[in-house]
Parts: sequence; C-alpha cells; structure tokens
Amino acid sequence: MRMILLSGGSGKRLWPLSNVNRPKQFLSILRHDERPESMLQRIWRQLDEADLAEQAYFSTSGTQVELIQGQIGGDAVVIEEPTQRDTFPAISLATAYLHDVVGASRDEIVGVMPVDGYAGDEFFEHLRRLPSILEQSGSHIALMGAVPTEPSDKYGYIVPSAPLLDQAYYRVSSFVEKPDLIRSEALIREGALWNCGVFAFRIGFLMDVLTQMGLPVDYESLSTNYADLPKTSFDIAVVEHTRKLSVLPYHGEWRDLGTWDSLVREVSSKLSGPGYISEASHDSHIINELEIPVSIWNVPNIIVVAGPDGVLVTDRQSSTGIKDMVAEIEIGPRFEERFWGKQTVLSHQQAASGLQTVTKRVVISNGRFISYHEHQFRKEVWTIVSGTGSVCIDGMTQTVSPGMVIVVEPGAKHFIGAVEGDLEFIESQIGHMVSETDIIRYEFPDSVDARIV
Amino acid sequence: MRMILLSGGSGKRLWPLSNVNRPKQFLSILRHDERPESMLQRIWRQLDEADLAEQAYFSTSGTQVELIQGQIGGDAVVIEEPTQRDTFPAISLATAYLHDVVGASRDEIVGVMPVDGYAGDEFFEHLRRLPSILEQSGSHIALMGAVPTEPSDKYGYIVPSAPLLDQAYYRVSSFVEKPDLIRSEALIREGALWNCGVFAFRIGFLMDVLTQMGLPVDYESLSTNYADLPKTSFDIAVVEHTRKLSVLPYHGEWRDLGTWDSLVREVSSKLSGPGYISEASHDSHIINELEIPVSIWNVPNIIVVAGPDGVLVTDRQSSTGIKDMVAEIEIGPRFEERFWGKQTVLSHQQAASGLQTVTKRVVISNGRFISYHEHQFRKEVWTIVSGTGSVCIDGMTQTVSPGMVIVVEPGAKHFIGAVEGDLEFIESQIGHMVSETDIIRYEFPDSVDARIV
Repeated sequence: MRMILLSGGSGKRLWPLSNVNRPKQFLSILRHDERPESMLQRIWRQLDEADLAEQAYFSTSGTQVELIQGQIGGDAVVIEEPTQRDTFPAISLATAYLHDVVGASRDEIVGVMPVDGYAGDEFFEHLRRLPSILEQSGSHIALMGAVPTEPSDKYGYIVPSAPLLDQAYYRVSSFVEKPDLIRSEALIREGALWNCGVFAFRIGFLMDVLTQMGLPVDYESLSTNYADLPKTSFDIAVVEHTRKLSVLPYHGEWRDLGTWDSLVREVSSKLSGPGYISEASHDSHIINELEIPVSIWNVPNIIVVAGPDGVLVTDRQSSTGIKDMVAEIEIGPRFEERFWGKQTVLSHQQAASGLQTVTKRVVISNGRFISYHEHQFRKEVWTIVSGTGSVCIDGMTQTVSPGMVIVVEPGAKHFIGAVEGDLEFIESQIGHMVSETDIIRYEFPDSVDARIV
Repeated sequence: MRMILLSGGSGKRLWPLSNVNRPKQFLSILRHDERPESMLQRIWRQLDEADLAEQAYFSTSGTQVELIQGQIGGDAVVIEEPTQRDTFPAISLATAYLHDVVGASRDEIVGVMPVDGYAGDEFFEHLRRLPSILEQSGSHIALMGAVPTEPSDKYGYIVPSAPLLDQAYYRVSSFVEKPDLIRSEALIREGALWNCGVFAFRIGFLMDVLTQMGLPVDYESLSTNYADLPKTSFDIAVVEHTRKLSVLPYHGEWRDLGTWDSLVREVSSKLSGPGYISEASHDSHIINELEIPVSIWNVPNIIVVAGPDGVLVTDRQSSTGIKDMVAEIEIGPRFEERFWGKQTVLSHQQAASGLQTVTKRVVISNGRFISYHEHQFRKEVWTIVSGTGSVCIDGMTQTVSPGMVIVVEPGAKHFIGAVEGDLEFIESQIGHMVSETDIIRYEFPDSVDARIV
C-alpha cells in the first residue's frame, strides 16, 4: 500500500504557537525519548516503524513543502498542490501522480491519512490491514473507525450496519457529522465509531469516479486545471456517494489534538519554558517559547501559551473558539521554520518617515544555506553570534565567525550558509519591507569609514 | 513648608513591569489629559498645582536619581543617599541638607511624603495646612490621616484621642500597624484613620532627636557615616517615641497603589496595549507593554501583565504575594529608563563558547546623549532606525541618520547623542558582558572590507 499523507491547516486554532507558516502538525510540543517531536515527526516515525514510510507521499501546498522537508529530511517526497484547495482535489492529484509519475497500476491500493492526528503505535498495524479488508469485502473504500472512549461533539461518526462483535470489518450504514453530546451518546450505544479520516481505495476506483464526474484523470491535466477542480472534501465528493464501504474498528488510542486543552493532556510537564505556576493554580499549564518567564499566580484551570506571535490566556473548556479571535489580533507570523533553519522576529517598527526596521534572530542549520538573492530597497546587517559560516556578497566569498559584522547594501546579491555547526546571527533590516516594486527607493547615507558603514 | 519626597521601593510587587531599575512610582500607567503619567509625575504635578513643588527635594539613591531627572526634568533637586537604607536615615540626611546646604533655619517646617501613593488633588490643599496645625497644637509632628472608606488590612492606622467631630486636628492616641480585617472594622468604629506616611515637623525638632540619639546633625557627617546610621523607619525611630503628635483628618481620595488589583482600578480601559479580551472574561484586565498581542479567552477576574521582563497571570484578590515568587524567576531587568532615554533588551543569549550576545532597542531622547565611554571586551553594532544623531568614536565625530550602521570595536571610546528628534537604533552587543575584569579577551576576527567589518 502506498500512503498519501495530507498536510493542511490554517494554524489558527493553536494560536499563538501555530500560524499560517506553521500549522499545528509542525509544533514541536510532543516528546519522544526525551526529545521534542512534532505531530508530523511522530506520524512519520510510526509509519516508518510499520514499514509504511518508504511508500509514503506528502500532499501539501506552498510554504509547507519546506517545512516538511525541514522536519523529515531528504526522505520526504512531496506532491505539491498548485494552490491550497480541499481534500478532494488534493487526493485526486496525488493519486494521479502515483499512477502517472511513480508508475503505480490501477490495481494498486492507496491509503490516505492526515498528519495532524495523534494515535498509538498499534494504529499503524491496523492500517496495514486495510488492503486485505478491501480484498475480502469487495468494497470500494475501507475506512478506519476508532472505538469511542467518551461521548464527543468534536468528531464525525461512522455507523456500522451491524452491532460491533468480533468481525474483522463491518459494512458502513451511514455517516453522522459532529453530532451534539446527547446524540453522540446514542450513537455510541448503537456501535458507531469515530471517523479518523484514514481510508484506502484502489487507484482505478478513483480514476473511474473522476471520469464519471467529467474530470481528467491524468496528473498533467489535473495539475494544470487544479484551480478549476471542485473545492470540496473527499468525504463529500466521493465517500458519501459510494455504496460499497467497509470500516475496520480500532480499539486503541486515537484523537485529534486540535485544541490547547487536548494538547496539554499529552505533555507530561505542566510548565514548559521559563516560568512559575503557584501551588493554588491547580490544573493550570504554561507552554512558553519566549525567553522571558511566564507566571500563573493563583488561577486554576487555565492554559497560558506564549510565543513570538503573542500570548494567550484561556480556560481549558472553551479553547475551541479561539480561531475567530485570532483573525482580529494577528500581527503576521513572527516565527518561521524554513528548509534552511528558523527565524524569529524580535522587533518590527515603522518610523514616521515610512522606513521600517525588522530585527530577527536567525539560525541556519548545519550544512544548509539561504540561497543567493538580493533586495532592492533594504539594507541588512548581520552580527554573527555562533557557528562558522560562509558568506558571499556580489561574488566575493568570505568565512565568517562570531563577532563579525556583515553589512549587505541594497541591491547586493548575497548568500549565507552554515559551515560548522548551526550558524546563528542577529539581523537588522532597514528600508522598505512591504512591497519592493511600488515605492520610492530610500537613499541610504554614504559610508564614511570602516567603522561607520 | 519645604517638602522631602521619599522615593524608594524594590519594584517586586508590580513585577513584571516594575523592577529594581524601575520601582512602581515610575510606571507610566496612569493617565492625565489623555496622556500617560507615572505616580511620580502625578504627585509632582499635584505639588506644583498646590505651589509646593518649588521647595520640594527628592530623597533617593542610586539608579533612581537618573529616573527622577528623566521623568521630572531639570527642576528636580535630588538629595542622593550614599546607599539605600530606610526612611529614618533618609529623612535625617535630607533634613540636614536643607539646613546646611540650602540654608533653612531650625524653625522652618519640613513636610515628608512618599511618591508612590495616589491621592486626590484636595489632599495637597490639606497638606498645606500642616504648618498651621503644628503651630496651633504645639505638637512636634503633625500627620495626615485619611478617613477610611472600607476596612483594610493593607494600611497602618492612627487612633485619635477623641471621636472624629469637626475639630481641625486631633491629638494622636496610638498607632496600629496593619491589623486584620476584623480589628480594622473595630478601629474604624473608634474613629481611626489610615496612616498616609505624610507628616511635618520643624528642622530643629529632628536635630534635637538626632543629638539625643548620639548621632551627628550636620550633612557632612551624616553623609560620610551614612552606612552606620540605624537601618530603621522614621516611624519606629522617631514617631513612636514622640509624645506631642497631632493628626489632620482628610476626607478625600487616598490609597496605596501597591498591587495590580489596586492599579487596574485606576485605569479606565480594560485593555492597554495590543490584545483582546473575550466577552465572557468579565472583570479581567490586560496591561501589555510588549509589541505582540496578549489575549484572554473566557477567564474572568484575572489580571494579565506583560512586559520585557516577563508575563504575569494573576487573580485579582491575591496579587499581594507575588513579591516572593519574583525572586525565583527574575532574569534581570530587560527594560531600563535612564536620564538619556530608555532601552529594552530584545534577546540575550550565551553561546557554548561563552560569548554572549545582547540585542537591544535603544531610544535616546532629543537633545540627550550617552556619555563618552569604552568597553574592553565587547563589540557594539548600531543600526540607526530614526532620528538624527551625533556619534564620536575615538575622537572622530560624525552625523548619523537612518540606515547607517556603526560598529564600535572593543576598546574604542564612543559617544552617541540625539540631535534632531529622538534617536532610535538597534544595538547588537557581542563579547563578554558579565565581568570586564576577570576574563580572557575574545579575539574578534579581522575586518576584511567595507562590507564585512
């Protein structure tokens, strides 16, 4: 079975740590062997342990390509969506890629899995059984259904056609999308399962569906016409119109870590980062990615999350509504994880003159580099903090080490890479940052001597 | 009447905005005519309106001298304590200064007032009556007593010798230091008044007390032997041993703004700085001095305070205990207000090599300057953001403007001042910051060309 791993998300529900550039699956807030791990890295490790990683392909768009490669490394194969749409176009494109580019046959089975879930290791052993269930049942799609551990209004439900006994799989009778708590209790009594969004089908099945819908089936056409494909979910476009559906019940650990409350339950320590939680603040948690301490004094049952984008203080129950608030207060992402490393904005200011200054802490990972480029309307100043690097400015290459200062004038082509260990520097940018095309160039004062540049 | 204005405080109770370098009286969190105002500035304005500022002298020590001059301007006369002790030595030294340096006679009356209180304007009209009460009553000390508005365990009480009727003043029967709430109710029924820490006496009275205690009375000796003076309060050393005491009841607004809860009651807006308070978070407040937004989502009755030193989330009732916690988590002041302006540490990091990097945002006020000095073991890089400045490095003077970069090598003498408007720049320091005497000098790499310095 080849796997299509769906990586999407707007990053708003886990503000302020996640943002458009870093949806929740990339947050390094889980732990494995005492080391931080993101949801993406956890799933990749679990797939690898179940021998499913070698045949796995990521489906994603835009900035996430770099993030996935940064977190997984060179092994990650990414099928890039031309624009971010929904799961129906994404899965269709990825399936066509497997057929046309990778050379998979119509008979081969594809498993689909979102990378922002949280499951126990045994989930992946179950996953390996989906192909044989497709085979045995003669179904078009075989789904994974987690046996609910409590009534919940956060999940969709799959209703099997027979009470859960000891069958290997069940026919699907119906789907119920996020019911209220009372309805969910009734559903659970009837044997309904949580829909994990994980399923498998034969490549030929989806190609036939696309043909029936009047859509192209080849990768080239799907890619070119991507913006015209229906912006809808695979559930709505395909699953709900398919009669032959089976579900495999899964009795282990599975949940969606989509709220701060669900996330802190997975974190062993109540305090991560510098800070203090007073004794009377029972069941309160702090996740702090700032340099400065964060303290809770006598407030129980809250979660405080602090990062370069902002600080959130929320109760544990209602942290699902945060998404709407974020739109109002967002100031743009101040933390970015890139293929070459990461950067944090420390300060961003606009002078009355219109000149802007951005101060950043930049870390380039050992062996990586920021490629040769130039800025017409801004100057950059780098003060090297640690590591050894290689810098090239307008064709002149130079080794740099801590304490050196590099000034990149507007228009100068520049490159910087980490040669020995991670290369860390403080960058001050000054100039016009918003648009580089539609503005008057700022006349930077002339240099006067080697010390005043 | 000449006034001695006492400015002290450790700055711990209002962490994270106040710190050792900025005790609470310097926080600009009050408002006057739509503009921010500190407690110090408010009291100075009120003294000025009551014609008491011209004869007022600040008594303080160390870093506060610059802060007072920065906030009040050139009018402030500061009597500097050689070291920070308690109010008895401070008032004694200041009184001797008035006699020996200013030339006040033994018969002149001195009023004493701490600058970290909060009173209505009418308080200062009452204050002007203290000299005539000293006169009429024949007392040695005349105190201000605020008529309590509620039982409180935060204040000391002055018990008058007769029930409060319409006398201009009362003899003092006794003092009660911070009673519990039940005892405070009883005291209020007996007519007790809050001790505002504001009082007046004749210079000659205190000189006699000092002589009786075997202490010198002249400014020179008191200053030289300051470290040997009893480290005790004026209340304990003098007031409690004085029999002839009067108190002037004051019926207006007076309170100590010593906790976040008492402070936010004076602030008209629930949100100061960028952020968001959800509707269900009733009676919650945010004071945010960071650039990034701070949000409260569905947590009522809390106060969130965020600044360069840290973030505090506290309930409204118990914010008095914060002082003890702060000692555990303090990372050293990251915001400093100085005579020449202000600076904020944006990031402070130590590399494995021992090299440290501090990145700051520095604002020099128009017309002010940082005096000529040098650092043996660190390099500084300034990127000018706004304003026009004058820089002198090793005797060479240069005008600087936005976009210019100045590199100050270790050992280079340097000066920077604001010539036209406030001068703002980003400073990266790299080198050994902790001690400049006991360490091996870091060999900074050589300069290579005008762009790589």
